[in-house]
Amino acid sequence: MTSPIAVVLVSGGLDSFVAAASAQAAGYRLLALSIDYNQRHRVELAAARRVAATLGVERHVVLPLDLSAFGGSALTADIDVPKDGVGEGIPVTYVPARNTIFLSLALGWAEAAGARDLFIGVNALDYSGYPDCRPEFIAGFATLAELATKAGVEGSPFRIHAPLQDMTKADIVREGARLGLDMGLSWSCYDPTSDGEHCGLCDSCRLRHKGFEEAGVPDPTVYARPPAAP
Amino acid sequence: MTSPIAVVLVSGGLDSFVAAASAQAAGYRLLALSIDYNQRHRVELAAARRVAATLGVERHVVLPLDLSAFGGSALTADIDVPKDGVGEGIPVTYVPARNTIFLSLALGWAEAAGARDLFIGVNALDYSGYPDCRPEFIAGFATLAELATKAGVEGSPFRIHAPLQDMTKADIVREGARLGLDMGLSWSCYDPTSDGEHCGLCDSCRLRHKGFEEAGVPDPTVYARPPAAP
Repeated sequence: MTSPIAVVLVSGGLDSFVAAASAQAAGYRLLALSIDYNQRHRVELAAARRVAATLGVERHVVLPLDLSAFGGSALTADIDVPKDGVGEGIPVTYVPARNTIFLSLALGWAEAAGARDLFIGVNALDYSGYPDCRPEFIAGFATLAELATKAGVEGSPFRIHAPLQDMTKADIVREGARLGLDMGLSWSCYDPTSDGEHCGLCDSCRLRHKGFEEAGVPDPTVYARPPAAP
Repeated sequence: MTSPIAVVLVSGGLDSFVAAASAQAAGYRLLALSIDYNQRHRVELAAARRVAATLGVERHVVLPLDLSAFGGSALTADIDVPKDGVGEGIPVTYVPARNTIFLSLALGWAEAAGARDLFIGVNALDYSGYPDCRPEFIAGFATLAELATKAGVEGSPFRIHAPLQDMTKADIVREGARLGLDMGLSWSCYDPTSDGEHCGLCDSCRLRHKGFEEAGVPDPTVYARPPAAP
């Protein structure tokens, strides 16, 4: 019997790397989707290519989609990325409707390819800030996918997997280590230095480093300066 | 008081032209969004530009998004467009998750621009074939938008307007005439001739022509051959 296919969203970050590897460990063949949305940290797409290559995915599509046409986020417009620690509420790095857009694209590819499983690396940490990382959003998207598609209408619904949903960053690092991943291939920083290093100051660098520390796993990341606590 | 802003999906077709004009007639200023998804009938984007210009929208974004990377539709892959009349079931011109993708993008722009209203030209005729034109899909998307966004979480939900939802094509033509639209600016054909004419044979040509006939409004469209009944 052939293994089933899954579409995995691979940003180049640590979370989607571990989510994709989990899908593979669960027996899926992978179609990897990355979006070149003109993000400030486009260097993450090089990491996405490394991740797709190391996992040996069946196909990797890097889809250009210039969300900077809309703006509204520190990741796509001329708004500074915060450097003074993780704050309260929804951060300015929130990109309006990003995960809705990305899951919609993954859904389109999945239906075209005959896949019924989608994987996304959202998790408990992001949850605290981004609305479209919450379990109720993921469940809502699964409901919509059933209404939106030929497959759904014909009684063959999609499953939206978020295997890291209840994990902290330390849990994710532990899971990556357990799966034997070279986590140094991934990229987290929102505001890379001109030398191509992680800045060490943005929320994403702080959370990444704390995850490795708490997991007791050596952090392979090269930071421009040692990350402080989030 | 300034008029509210709405994001309208403008394909270049007749339906979205009338939907956008309805939004304008209802007092909204318009942000028009068209998607260049590498559709077989990319000529509709020229129509979208004409429509946006004649309506005098505040801004028109034509966003490149190459859905042919996924395939799975006669509109984006090397599959023939049916020419022998409207059949049963979901047609091969269905593009997997297209309206989910397009509404997600409209949602992203709306949130970034501070708009809370989205307009889409889905209607009763499409409904019979495409799952993502049904009222339950539109309602499902509104529910998801509330879960997915900063605005939704903060208690300022989005309204997804489908003003043509219960209209036949003849109703839409009548509404276009009532609003004084030059409906010849719009484009419907899925499989344009090399001379840039409507083919007259695809479902979309047949339904368009029947709409004008039933409405008793002269059809301004140049067809390569006179459309038969759907």
